[in-house]
Amino acid sequence: MKLHVVLLEPEIPQNTGNIARTCVITDTVLHIIGPMGFSLDEKAVKRAGLDYWDLLDFRYYDSYGEFLEKNPNAKVYYATTKAEKAHSDITYEEEVFIMFGKETAGIPKDILEKNKETCIRIPMLNIEKARSLNLSNSVAIGVYEVLRQWNYPKMR
Amino acid sequence: MKLHVVLLEPEIPQNTGNIARTCVITDTVLHIIGPMGFSLDEKAVKRAGLDYWDLLDFRYYDSYGEFLEKNPNAKVYYATTKAEKAHSDITYEEEVFIMFGKETAGIPKDILEKNKETCIRIPMLNIEKARSLNLSNSVAIGVYEVLRQWNYPKMR
Repeated sequence: MKLHVVLLEPEIPQNTGNIARTCVITDTVLHIIGPMGFSLDEKAVKRAGLDYWDLLDFRYYDSYGEFLEKNPNAKVYYATTKAEKAHSDITYEEEVFIMFGKETAGIPKDILEKNKETCIRIPMLNIEKARSLNLSNSVAIGVYEVLRQWNYPKMR
Repeated sequence: MKLHVVLLEPEIPQNTGNIARTCVITDTVLHIIGPMGFSLDEKAVKRAGLDYWDLLDFRYYDSYGEFLEKNPNAKVYYATTKAEKAHSDITYEEEVFIMFGKETAGIPKDILEKNKETCIRIPMLNIEKARSLNLSNSVAIGVYEVLRQWNYPKMR
């Protein structure tokens, strides 16, 4: 069983830092598709106190196209507020990817439209002022639903 | 059905801000037991961009004792890395409270020992360098497991 989180053009370093920590703690691979709104060189990672970064299985791509090319058989779920199915309505396969869009805009429409069957949403109340969940919280919720279904492999 | 999140002496304002947002979006009551490591007066809330704060059902207590006194019949679950039961092993009642301790230390031992039966943990790998999940991520995971069991009342 292997879980993969894919961040498409993340903008806020604190979110990516928290997501990296969640990935390390859950044996999840973190894929980032650039461009990012910040740097992830050694200095920046150190400055941000991400001392667990070297424990992370991390893969970087310059574009969505490169991601698809390098992961040709990936079963990808696309997290969006616009999906019909809730994330917890899915029965997850043994190796899955969950993609999350950038903080301000989500996943671009054309990607969602090409992948309607595997779009998922995290249910929430529609409260304009509060927007949607924080990105790192959305990732944590998605990751832990998959892990729950898999009965938390190797964890306690 | 009513869900309550209780933060015991939170230290990091960004975490409390994200948790407040999760609470607004999920119709969850936020209880904070002080002292806090930061201010929540009108100015501070505005400065932090928490423009959804006025939509929050928020209750503040000066001490754990005051919280217990004002919520005498509360069914409280205590989130801790030291519990036997996983958070998703519980069948949640129709009105529940989940308490989370401060970022650096968790819930004090004496409180955990008095409430062994209702201590819960979020399963994770034991990776010293990565510590445990970020506080706002832990809250999001806990909240969404309860909501999943309740079939996301009023949400879509």
